[in-house]
Amino acid sequence: MTSTPFSYASLLPPGLPAPAARFTGLAKYSFVGGNNDPDGVPVDELVEAVTAVLKREGKSLATYNLAHGPQGYRPLREFLVRKLKRDAGIACTVDDLMIVSGSLQALDLVNQTLLARGDTVIFEKESYQGSINRLTRMGVNIVGIPLDGHGMRMDALANALADLKAKGITPKYIYTIPTVQNPTATILPEDRRAEMLRLSEQYGVPIFEDDCYADLTWDGKRPPALYAMSKTGNVIHIGSFSKSIAPALRVGFIVAPWEMMSRMLALKTDAGSGALEQMVLAEYCAPHFESHVPKLTRGLRAKLDTLMDALGEQFGTSAEFEEPSGGIFLWVKLPDHVDTLKLYQAALAAGVAINPGPEWSVDKPYSGCRLRLCFASPSHEQIREGVAVLADVCRKEFGVPERSANVEKRARG
Amino acid sequence: MTSTPFSYASLLPPGLPAPAARFTGLAKYSFVGGNNDPDGVPVDELVEAVTAVLKREGKSLATYNLAHGPQGYRPLREFLVRKLKRDAGIACTVDDLMIVSGSLQALDLVNQTLLARGDTVIFEKESYQGSINRLTRMGVNIVGIPLDGHGMRMDALANALADLKAKGITPKYIYTIPTVQNPTATILPEDRRAEMLRLSEQYGVPIFEDDCYADLTWDGKRPPALYAMSKTGNVIHIGSFSKSIAPALRVGFIVAPWEMMSRMLALKTDAGSGALEQMVLAEYCAPHFESHVPKLTRGLRAKLDTLMDALGEQFGTSAEFEEPSGGIFLWVKLPDHVDTLKLYQAALAAGVAINPGPEWSVDKPYSGCRLRLCFASPSHEQIREGVAVLADVCRKEFGVPERSANVEKRARG
Repeated sequence: MTSTPFSYASLLPPGLPAPAARFTGLAKYSFVGGNNDPDGVPVDELVEAVTAVLKREGKSLATYNLAHGPQGYRPLREFLVRKLKRDAGIACTVDDLMIVSGSLQALDLVNQTLLARGDTVIFEKESYQGSINRLTRMGVNIVGIPLDGHGMRMDALANALADLKAKGITPKYIYTIPTVQNPTATILPEDRRAEMLRLSEQYGVPIFEDDCYADLTWDGKRPPALYAMSKTGNVIHIGSFSKSIAPALRVGFIVAPWEMMSRMLALKTDAGSGALEQMVLAEYCAPHFESHVPKLTRGLRAKLDTLMDALGEQFGTSAEFEEPSGGIFLWVKLPDHVDTLKLYQAALAAGVAINPGPEWSVDKPYSGCRLRLCFASPSHEQIREGVAVLADVCRKEFGVPERSANVEKRARG
Repeated sequence: MTSTPFSYASLLPPGLPAPAARFTGLAKYSFVGGNNDPDGVPVDELVEAVTAVLKREGKSLATYNLAHGPQGYRPLREFLVRKLKRDAGIACTVDDLMIVSGSLQALDLVNQTLLARGDTVIFEKESYQGSINRLTRMGVNIVGIPLDGHGMRMDALANALADLKAKGITPKYIYTIPTVQNPTATILPEDRRAEMLRLSEQYGVPIFEDDCYADLTWDGKRPPALYAMSKTGNVIHIGSFSKSIAPALRVGFIVAPWEMMSRMLALKTDAGSGALEQMVLAEYCAPHFESHVPKLTRGLRAKLDTLMDALGEQFGTSAEFEEPSGGIFLWVKLPDHVDTLKLYQAALAAGVAINPGPEWSVDKPYSGCRLRLCFASPSHEQIREGVAVLADVCRKEFGVPERSANVEKRARG
């Protein structure tokens, strides 16, 4: 360009998010993002699957949605019908399922169908950053319900619903990640699920069940999905292949009653999600999913052990956490005076990326000394080194952990 | 479900689109949608490409965006830099490019960055239905500029910009499909492009250039892109692999100055577009794109000939059209009293799907007797049979074409 650059500034509407910074690569020690274990990607089997399905059906890529309609590639929906029955107790048909471009698109479709600016929704007090950010941008109020070691507290949910009703507010949904909650990794037991369903009916507030980590429990067991336990269609269920196969594939799904499904289909104006990825997943998953997941979770469990060991060694008693029963992240509490937003900045400068607690919570003061550490992507060596660097940074910035943490831990152990 | 179904009706915000109908399959004779020629999908080479790239880089699927950042898989952007230079004269770098989930996501990102309810934009009077519908839903006013055999008329554009300025209105962009316009298949010559750029600068209104059909000219030639001719960054350019490779893949791209790119990146909250499809395209296109496209367009050109022949045989002088110099659709005018919205319904009942003109135009009366026929997807036989059925339906509903059309045509030929 040789002339005065054209300026777009005066054309931008109010309320846009801040411009993005240029991408400069991932941190050397990256404990952020839902990235998976590179060694857990079943590359050879995916090559076999994609070869078989392309040779058989490749010409159908010439047609939007492979001519299978806007709800997605039928064999993938057929696999999901079997998988959801087996793993989550869900009885559904291919007509109740829509394939979407990652569960993030599922969030968008549910939100667009139910929410308007000024609405209120109910969340777990700590929750997924992507879900929180979407609602903040939409101008939707979030009421956070505290969790304990067994997920969302039903007494607190009952109180919140009663309070809101007294104020004349009907929340649009109860958003929950009941099975390996993000970031606390808790699992909501069956009796709480029954109680949540009862409260949902009582107050006429549907449940939005985000089950995207549910495949990753160490023992392969999980309670039935809320969707499975519902007798009335008061649950919208979403899931993903990001955590069980590979996040870069961008394939998720929604299970919902037709009343909601027909509305979400009308809002899905992208001419379908990526068909090749749907074809590969269907072809791969039908024979391999059941045996793949335990292999994947064994590797994840080993990395979690490395992370917990490293935290014990480097932070001693300064780092508190509950041992997760699945997933890819650990929710860690540091001493109260540590500000993890500041720690995040200082750590990043030292090559360590972490998720500061306030970004994963609707209660910023409570989560100010907390952080989320994702352990699936870094190698065991990177986990050990990264935690050591993080401890150094934290010590410099906040005086904890003390130098003696290592010794103290061993003395106590 | 055994109990009273939960009702979502009272929770839905105002302004939602109507619920979708259940998918019941494609029409027997389908002349709608941007579907491509099934025989044009290079299946064997795609299998080779996906095998090579997965074996080499498959583990990187464990990381969002393959760790290449939110602008997409770098080798695909590198291919596009070379391709856009060679074919469209665009000089850009990988930093000026963002890979998106089909050019529909590009439309959404540009619209979200620039538009608010009540804004005004400029369109070609006939234009792509998907673009029109998006703006209608957003509450944006569209000013339509008439086309002639060489695309948008610059005298009319100059008048419209002056009129709007006199009313104190700055349109947010001039949306154009300059190279194989949809649905008229016209190509805007270089002198008009220069004039459009001049008007854009004069009025401070950027150009939104949708080049998604630009690869499909019969002779492989095309004028330089508006983006290439701009000296100031007043053009946002989008393109797609849907028409040149396969629509079900859902891979498109945006070329834009960083001022716009950084805003669109902030709005692209989908954690990246499908990575496997980006990998396959990069691996396939680098060696094969240049030889693939002429093979594809030869097949398309042959189908166009079949369609024009069939229309001549079945409709005689009742069907008027200009021979396109590329693309996958024919824009047809029937006698003035034919209502193609009604024809669409009657034809669909007879197994023939067409695009009624009013859905592809911002001037409904003008386009009421027009229709768009897509010819890439049906076979030659389906084209002949489908046009015959369409003529029968049209005759029954509107009295044209007359029975003698066939003879009349031959007598004139």
